Amino acid sequence: MAIKVLGIAQSTCTLRVVAVAKALNIPLEIEAVDLAKGAHKSPEYTAKYQPFGRIPVLVEDDFVLYESRAICRYLANKYQTKETVQLIPTDLKQAALVEQYISVETSEYGAAVGKYVFEVVFKPMKGGVTDPEIVAKAREEVIAALSVYEKFLEGKSYLVGESFTLADICHLPYGHYACNAGLADVFDSPERPNVARWWKTITNEAAWKAAIGQ
Amino acid sequence: MAIKVLGIAQSTCTLRVVAVAKALNIPLEIEAVDLAKGAHKSPEYTAKYQPFGRIPVLVEDDFVLYESRAICRYLANKYQTKETVQLIPTDLKQAALVEQYISVETSEYGAAVGKYVFEVVFKPMKGGVTDPEIVAKAREEVIAALSVYEKFLEGKSYLVGESFTLADICHLPYGHYACNAGLADVFDSPERPNVARWWKTITNEAAWKAAIGQ
Ligand SMILES: N[C@@H](CCC(=O)N[C@@H](CS)C(=O)NCC(=O)O)C(=O)O
Ligand SMILES: N[C@@H](CCC(=O)N[C@@H](CS)C(=O)NCC(=O)O)C(=O)O
Repeated sequence: MAIKVLGIAQSTCTLRVVAVAKALNIPLEIEAVDLAKGAHKSPEYTAKYQPFGRIPVLVEDDFVLYESRAICRYLANKYQTKETVQLIPTDLKQAALVEQYISVETSEYGAAVGKYVFEVVFKPMKGGVTDPEIVAKAREEVIAALSVYEKFLEGKSYLVGESFTLADICHLPYGHYACNAGLADVFDSPERPNVARWWKTITNEAAWKAAIGQ
Repeated sequence: MAIKVLGIAQSTCTLRVVAVAKALNIPLEIEAVDLAKGAHKSPEYTAKYQPFGRIPVLVEDDFVLYESRAICRYLANKYQTKETVQLIPTDLKQAALVEQYISVETSEYGAAVGKYVFEVVFKPMKGGVTDPEIVAKAREEVIAALSVYEKFLEGKSYLVGESFTLADICHLPYGHYACNAGLADVFDSPERPNVARWWKTITNEAAWKAAIGQ
């Protein structure tokens, strides 16, 4: 049975889930939610699917799950086998490090990159006006966060050693949008060679290319 | 061997970890980090323990792990047995719901309650001046978030059914500080009886009382 995800294939949060599905070969059916028409804020949607009125939502028979990172973990825990990529390692300590970097993505990287992407991409989409001061500040915050990444990526291909994990996937959507919206030079800078190498590696993963339709 | 946590027992992020240790009877040794003296920003601390210069950090022999929620999951995965409380359920779907609510805590509840606590408690501690406008706005945001909680807590003792899980624990530190700093009436309001009941239940859990030294 195909698993249904209510969302928008190109949205950052849905992309996170789609990339996991591609990495594990899970047939995922995306059912579009018309954000422009406010479908995600309708009483029916918030009662049945996502009480805060957001996307994405996984629907599998009568099981409903929201929050993109929770959906990603569920899919990995359910579909990962010895034959697939190990998005969540079976070793407890390695798994803990994956969780460490997923949290770092949320609290350090996402706080900065997400602010930039919101200001440059989503705010104008919603009819707002991009504030150059906020953009400049967010850019500095992204640089500050990535300067720390530069240190812990030393000698590693991926965040947790030599395998592509859920921690790397979680970083891709916001970074992808940011690079397409003026931060490509920050992600690929000679001042941060480890970050540049890591970013090139993970954006070239087949699962990610499939997720963004390349 | 006792596990060491670098942190401050009373800080919100450390409390999250301490509550898990209390719930699972894990002997935890808290090694104080002198935030006032900036010990967490020293080159040694950031090189060896937490590259972003924050607490808490778990140190177990040569294994170093940071990010409070990652530490909580690691301790639960390592120390939970059939005889202990099930902070992370073994059932995949139940576990996924725990993750859903941990994410909701970060993105919806924490965004609002954390903003309130920062403005009222931590900002003045750091020498700043509390801005009543931000406080009023944060209060409204907390009410808005808890009004959604009111719906999904209907008919449930805890976030995920009838057991105390890591999802409940993750909500306690910020809520505890907020209640002590002017939001008690919001967490215990006749307008949100399900929230009030849930909050009373989880703040009365033995593990939480032990964590805050009661
Ligand atoms: N923490 C949530 C965030 C979900 C979220 O903010 N989704 C955005 C799209 S990427 C959305 O629904 N925006 C519409 C809105 O919040 O009104 C998750 O990871 O699923
Ligand atoms: N996402 C991190 C946040 C850690 C954090 O912000 N800790 C605070 C204390 S609760 C801290 O270290 N503050 C000092 C600072 O950031 O300079 C976690 O959950 O561990």
